Amino acid sequence: MNPPASPEIEARIRGSFGKQGLMATLGAELTVIEAGRVEISLPVTPAVSQQHGFVHAGAVAAIADSAAGYVALSMMPAGTGVLTTEFKINLLAPAGGDRLVARGRVIKAGRTLTLALTEVFAVRQGEEKLCAMLTATLMAIAGRDGVAD
Amino acid sequence: MNPPASPEIEARIRGSFGKQGLMATLGAELTVIEAGRVEISLPVTPAVSQQHGFVHAGAVAAIADSAAGYVALSMMPAGTGVLTTEFKINLLAPAGGDRLVARGRVIKAGRTLTLALTEVFAVRQGEEKLCAMLTATLMAIAGRDGVAD
Amino acid sequence: MNPPASPEIEARIRGSFGKQGLMATLGAELTVIEAGRVEISLPVTPAVSQQHGFVHAGAVAAIADSAAGYVALSMMPAGTGVLTTEFKINLLAPAGGDRLVARGRVIKAGRTLTLALTEVFAVRQGEEKLCAMLTATLMAIAGRDGVAD
Amino acid sequence: MNPPASPEIEARIRGSFGKQGLMATLGAELTVIEAGRVEISLPVTPAVSQQHGFVHAGAVAAIADSAAGYVALSMMPAGTGVLTTEFKINLLAPAGGDRLVARGRVIKAGRTLTLALTEVFAVRQGEEKLCAMLTATLMAIAGRDGVAD
Repeated sequence: MNPPASPEIEARIRGSFGKQGLMATLGAELTVIEAGRVEISLPVTPAVSQQHGFVHAGAVAAIADSAAGYVALSMMPAGTGVLTTEFKINLLAPAGGDRLVARGRVIKAGRTLTLALTEVFAVRQGEEKLCAMLTATLMAIAGRDGVAD
Repeated sequence: MNPPASPEIEARIRGSFGKQGLMATLGAELTVIEAGRVEISLPVTPAVSQQHGFVHAGAVAAIADSAAGYVALSMMPAGTGVLTTEFKINLLAPAGGDRLVARGRVIKAGRTLTLALTEVFAVRQGEEKLCAMLTATLMAIAGRDGVAD
Repeated sequence: MNPPASPEIEARIRGSFGKQGLMATLGAELTVIEAGRVEISLPVTPAVSQQHGFVHAGAVAAIADSAAGYVALSMMPAGTGVLTTEFKINLLAPAGGDRLVARGRVIKAGRTLTLALTEVFAVRQGEEKLCAMLTATLMAIAGRDGVAD
Repeated sequence: MNPPASPEIEARIRGSFGKQGLMATLGAELTVIEAGRVEISLPVTPAVSQQHGFVHAGAVAAIADSAAGYVALSMMPAGTGVLTTEFKINLLAPAGGDRLVARGRVIKAGRTLTLALTEVFAVRQGEEKLCAMLTATLMAIAGRDGVAD
């Protein structure tokens, strides 16, 4: 376990997450904000499924990308916004069980570009199994109207 | 414009798309099924937004991945299922406007693995602008219970 | 066939290519510079092989990345340098035959980031077969010592 | 430090590496083979450079891909061959210094597909700095002539 994030960083991330309509639509929750680590949780329901009943790769990617974005944002100067410029996700096992947990951490924080890595686990009766891994490039945006956090 | 897909392929894709709970949750529609081309459309609404009001990269990826998967499925033998093993998406411009259109095509169809490429356009008052590109590896799955189409 | 590149752009790309020690080491040649298209050719020899006798994915990626970088550079202001920030390559068929040809084009040129796509073909007795596809993000660098072209 | 690999696995990896003409051409060496970890080292010389004097992304990718491939191979049944189907590399800092060290590990070993992750460090006077990260999908190939290890 990492130390908790500062109250300023926690407020910044919670405020931005609250504006992501997609997270509410999917039923995703922000479950951990620590220094250098952000976790997002998603209940496995038919509303986020693909055709075989597992969670759709797009929903897996959505929570993994948000976890990557927020852990990157936690290291950016106040007033800047964060945008994903690219990500790759490898889907390693069926995304089933009770819920998914996406845990993001920063690999390298740069002035303009940050690389983050998110592991996604399928949780069934408390047991976790790695089901996906994402690496994302996040860009810090300063001084663009409407683009903060 | 390509020739239309065969009725069998169209039925197969429509049937599978109808089982993807996520597509209904996002409000996505299957708008074109031609031989070698599949198009999915998504209205831009607050329900699929990120924090600055554009469509969340996860929702962009979801329709792009489904378009890639279905165009790949259209070339796989009846009875097999399709699974995404990995994709990369590059986000090129803000995903805004009236709706997004994701157009998938097959780059190389193999016995086990297929590479597909999807371009996503932001459409505003009928004008299209490329906002994302995805390349995905799709795997053909035969003889696994519950995994068809 | 595209129109030829301007003499300034051709000189800029040839000059930079000539400084890439790796291209000489691999035996790669710059075979086409047109407006919006750059082609690099690599003879298939044991010097660039992997363990089964095909061209190593790293050598395939090297010429594909250089083709992407130079077609991106052709659209950047004079005086800036180009750096690859990420690429993904999908290897679609054995990279054998007489030589490989990598053809790069720009998908989207931005002020800071450009997305380019390179297709690599294995050529045997004049017949081409797609063996790899790469998408790369290139960054324009201005005002950094030693980083031009 | 991990326990050493078994003599069989070490011999298998060394034998295959010795057949990779590209590794000899670049001047790369296999420096560590442990259970679950493979390290490849590359001296920084003009022979592997890009236009600004750093190591070319293609050479960085080549050693990172080989490290990924060999750590994946170490978990595959004897008699199978290993092929890369795709990789993404993020270039995080200039690849300079005295030499590069690529360290690969397996994220998930599957029957057909394995995901491996390689970190590449630039080493200057004994000090290491992360300069690239690669994730690769490796495929196990059984029963194909000429494709072993």
